[in-house]
Amino acid sequence: MNKGALAILVHSGTENWSSQRWKSRFDDVCPDRSVLLLPDTSIDPAAVHYAAVWKPRPADLAAFPNLRVIFNLGAGVDALMADRSLPDVPLVRVAVGDLTARMTEYVVLHVLMHHRQELYLRESQRAKRWAPKLQWAAGAISVGVMGLGALGADAADALKRLGFRVAGWSRSPKTIGGIDCFHGEQQFEAFLRRTDILVCLLPLTPDTRHILNRALFEKLNRSSPLGAPVLINAGRGGLQNEADILQCLDDGTLGAASLDVYATEPLPVDSRFWTHPKVVLTPHNAADTDADEISKYVAQQIARFEAGGALENVVDRGRGY
Amino acid sequence: MNKGALAILVHSGTENWSSQRWKSRFDDVCPDRSVLLLPDTSIDPAAVHYAAVWKPRPADLAAFPNLRVIFNLGAGVDALMADRSLPDVPLVRVAVGDLTARMTEYVVLHVLMHHRQELYLRESQRAKRWAPKLQWAAGAISVGVMGLGALGADAADALKRLGFRVAGWSRSPKTIGGIDCFHGEQQFEAFLRRTDILVCLLPLTPDTRHILNRALFEKLNRSSPLGAPVLINAGRGGLQNEADILQCLDDGTLGAASLDVYATEPLPVDSRFWTHPKVVLTPHNAADTDADEISKYVAQQIARFEAGGALENVVDRGRGY
Repeated sequence: MNKGALAILVHSGTENWSSQRWKSRFDDVCPDRSVLLLPDTSIDPAAVHYAAVWKPRPADLAAFPNLRVIFNLGAGVDALMADRSLPDVPLVRVAVGDLTARMTEYVVLHVLMHHRQELYLRESQRAKRWAPKLQWAAGAISVGVMGLGALGADAADALKRLGFRVAGWSRSPKTIGGIDCFHGEQQFEAFLRRTDILVCLLPLTPDTRHILNRALFEKLNRSSPLGAPVLINAGRGGLQNEADILQCLDDGTLGAASLDVYATEPLPVDSRFWTHPKVVLTPHNAADTDADEISKYVAQQIARFEAGGALENVVDRGRGY
Repeated sequence: MNKGALAILVHSGTENWSSQRWKSRFDDVCPDRSVLLLPDTSIDPAAVHYAAVWKPRPADLAAFPNLRVIFNLGAGVDALMADRSLPDVPLVRVAVGDLTARMTEYVVLHVLMHHRQELYLRESQRAKRWAPKLQWAAGAISVGVMGLGALGADAADALKRLGFRVAGWSRSPKTIGGIDCFHGEQQFEAFLRRTDILVCLLPLTPDTRHILNRALFEKLNRSSPLGAPVLINAGRGGLQNEADILQCLDDGTLGAASLDVYATEPLPVDSRFWTHPKVVLTPHNAADTDADEISKYVAQQIARFEAGGALENVVDRGRGY
């Protein structure tokens, strides 16, 4: 046990994210290393070389003078980036195939639900009304994916497979087969103008905070078979202006929305999202983290790092993701 | 106009299937041919060489002595096969990419809805309850597709792309990359035993009538993350024993069902399917026919046939599909 210790620090209320569950996984994949759950007063802080964290409190990590790498246990590092006392060591985010595949499931499900008029069909079922409406083919619908990292690129590819017209927008230029790729501020409006269903998978940074607002919604395609454009946000709640979303749903600027993330989570019980007939709401479970896959990913990165290799998916602190 | 006439005979109550809509499409794609809507007493029955039909009444087609080909305007020919007076000429069914893609949309949507616990999540939204449950990955779920024709093979491929374990079952042996293919009566039980979500896309024939019954449901996998197996039927209502489905949903043999087809359509208002909390019901709109695509398909087949070429997708009247 002379290897540097791995400290786990998880703050989350959900069963899937229990600290003990993570410890058990890391014990399995790091058999020759001390794995501890914070807080743990029996450990010498100097012995901790690695931290695997989810939503640590500010300054939690500043207590470890010999920290070499911080592993964030999810894809989004916005909570960590807000901690001004975060030690200046490499910060690695999760990018495992399992997480990507789960997000693609969510995106494909919700695009198909809106494309195939599920809100109308469920209402018809409740009313015992046999009233099929004209159903357009997927090729009649343009889906626009904001964010073309690992998540966005895979979701775009899966949507293409189903016949949708797919465009993507990202900060820097990308090339993805079969996807019309737009980038930067200059091409943003052209991307929005052609979009019937907008899927947001952007990271939350100072640049993207509240990017999903009325001004953006008003630029989406006004003439699609759907009647009005649809928003799907599975990125972060901070990306969206929630008052704008509700007003735009009410006045028809948006036809419907699927939301997985919210400014405040759990979503407060008095939020109008719960009861809005045009909202399909999920409790931030679009892409659950699989502790098995992620603990293996962290253990492999540590082994490579200690052998002198490079870490993967290190966050660019300037960009914020 | 000395070419043989094309007669259109459509019996359907939905707007998407209006006879006039079909005539307008066929006029466009057969500009040098007489296209008529039946009944039409002004036409010499001997001048009609081709019939494009949907649910004609028995003996409707027997009136045309020089009929050369009958084109069915959908994929399922079970209604036509029941007409003992059907002229003994080639009967062609529709197999166009558009129809296949639409069915794949439906199958992927409904498999994802059950896989991702949509019934639970919608109920949670209604109850304003933020309560994410453990979500397994697609790779934890075995989908079994009954029927591996053009529709089943494409749906299986799209499900595979999303990470599901996919098996298929068909009457005759098939080989499809990435899909575990079972065939015949002998392998039927092995196929069912491993299936968590059963997707039925079989043709309706005397052999398959009421194949979806309690004895079959009881053979499905009893130990999956879903809790109990799920049925998705987008084939024909005649494939299912509806009393068995309801009883199996009530006693837990089935966990849920997505149904697009019914023994009687429109579904009678007193059917328990409308209100059953475990049923996701659609009004036989899984794969709407696109009149543009299908009229082009028929016109191309007629042109090829008159040039001495072979017809495609001719129904084997012995098999019934």
